[in-house]
Amino acid sequence: MINKLIKKIEETKAPVVVGLDPVLGYVPEHIQKKAFAEYGETLGGAAEAIWQFNKEIVDNIHDLIPAVKPQIAMYEQYGVEGIKVYKKTVDYCHSKDLLVIGDIKRGDIGSTSAAYAIGHLGRVQVGSRNCTVFDEDFATVNPYLGSDGVKPFVEVCKKEKKGLFILVKTSNPSSGEFQDQPVNGRPLYELVGEQVAKWGADCVGDTYSYIGAVVGATYPEQGKILRRVMPNAFILVPGYGAQGGKGKDLVHFFNEDGLGAIVNSSRGIIAAYRQEAYASYGPENFAEASRAAVKDMITDIQEALKTR
Amino acid sequence: MINKLIKKIEETKAPVVVGLDPVLGYVPEHIQKKAFAEYGETLGGAAEAIWQFNKEIVDNIHDLIPAVKPQIAMYEQYGVEGIKVYKKTVDYCHSKDLLVIGDIKRGDIGSTSAAYAIGHLGRVQVGSRNCTVFDEDFATVNPYLGSDGVKPFVEVCKKEKKGLFILVKTSNPSSGEFQDQPVNGRPLYELVGEQVAKWGADCVGDTYSYIGAVVGATYPEQGKILRRVMPNAFILVPGYGAQGGKGKDLVHFFNEDGLGAIVNSSRGIIAAYRQEAYASYGPENFAEASRAAVKDMITDIQEALKTR
Repeated sequence: MINKLIKKIEETKAPVVVGLDPVLGYVPEHIQKKAFAEYGETLGGAAEAIWQFNKEIVDNIHDLIPAVKPQIAMYEQYGVEGIKVYKKTVDYCHSKDLLVIGDIKRGDIGSTSAAYAIGHLGRVQVGSRNCTVFDEDFATVNPYLGSDGVKPFVEVCKKEKKGLFILVKTSNPSSGEFQDQPVNGRPLYELVGEQVAKWGADCVGDTYSYIGAVVGATYPEQGKILRRVMPNAFILVPGYGAQGGKGKDLVHFFNEDGLGAIVNSSRGIIAAYRQEAYASYGPENFAEASRAAVKDMITDIQEALKTR
Repeated sequence: MINKLIKKIEETKAPVVVGLDPVLGYVPEHIQKKAFAEYGETLGGAAEAIWQFNKEIVDNIHDLIPAVKPQIAMYEQYGVEGIKVYKKTVDYCHSKDLLVIGDIKRGDIGSTSAAYAIGHLGRVQVGSRNCTVFDEDFATVNPYLGSDGVKPFVEVCKKEKKGLFILVKTSNPSSGEFQDQPVNGRPLYELVGEQVAKWGADCVGDTYSYIGAVVGATYPEQGKILRRVMPNAFILVPGYGAQGGKGKDLVHFFNEDGLGAIVNSSRGIIAAYRQEAYASYGPENFAEASRAAVKDMITDIQEALKTR
């Protein structure tokens, strides 16, 4: 799947992933009204509204980008109905030939991590049958529990030719509270980065490992260091746009081949119509605003990579 | 909710929580067969089998213990159907007056953590309505992302009078890989423990804070230290039984008042009928075997606490 991701990045010239992290506040009123009229102001109504919102955005951007990254929390908060729409979104994106990075940030001890890995990336045994479940292509994983927690995911990826992005240095302001703590003179995130490189050492596709890392765009200096620590890891870079990261901050996350990183924007794309720059589209044309924002993001990153 | 937990521990004399972590391999064949006959060898069939398994166990143990801890991974691996049964299990345990600790180990950046917190412990706004979703009483949280990731959970707990158990030192063999790393001469888990104490400082019920911690039974020495670092935190102690922890390992997790900790066993209880000690019950009477195992566990812990 890492080879497919790279191929799609090369085809689209867009090392970009759009975060499908819908909250009702972003969904234009006409969509909410329609969903509530049909299902009431219920979890089902909310789920229908975010589904219609997602669908229209995906229809408008799928040809521009290689992948999307639905954040499962935004679906899980609507319970079973929300999870249904998460799955529906994964399937719909696949039908549009988009790769799907499930932003699930799961991580637990051995057998429990295995259950998450099987459910999201693999197949679960039911009697004599092997069933795929959520079936994302990649998933994000939290490494705090150590190798026991990560290796079951790696095993499933080996078997199913899928991939991971393991949290190394996250984009949020307080990520340093634990991740930056000095361990024998180096920050903890470097140690985690080294482990990512080890976990992924025998998981290399044609050029890159399918065991990647998450490093926030908001920490470009750390990105520079981690790029060297994990030369074969693909880096998923959140924090572009709404969280403050800019194209020029991103160049060090990429290797000399122009590959090795994929930059995520969520709010900045899916709620573009609420920004001044795209306000002229209006709520009715929210998905066209998203398309314009994706194009601008791609240009920004391409320019930054050219002038590095 | 922490006051209610303590009251129930005192009533039952059992600082014990049973992990409802069903995998199909534990479910006796007669239950699997019946579920598959009705729903086929599908995710729905698997979910039905674990639901019937859970229900019979809960019916047989609910009067002995204060709380249960369903591990959401074991449900999530069966997709939407599994998540339905997770919710059904939470509700059924509530109907039997059991407190429910959702073992979800979520943790993300600000607004995303808020979505998890709202979905599991709070209420989500849908139009003019406020809906409860999964509605557990407590949840486990992963702290790797720092305060940004934890505080949204704390805020929801304050509002809803619910509680957290934050991962500090987990029970698995490789937990030390990052958690034990020396930070300025002390292991990282101590630093995380100090933060747990800070996050919970203004969240104290009658005696204990509702911001608690997870510390594995398999690390008694670390438990001793962490008990002092977080004097007001309730500690959820996994790793008893199947993972190797024994009653005598547990005493240091408790305070002098005999409170301050609650010990989890999952496999050791729900799959008791597969152990030699309880094999005489047979698969048909698996839930009675679980009842016997709960009683033995309570006795083991009571004895250990008496002779500390």
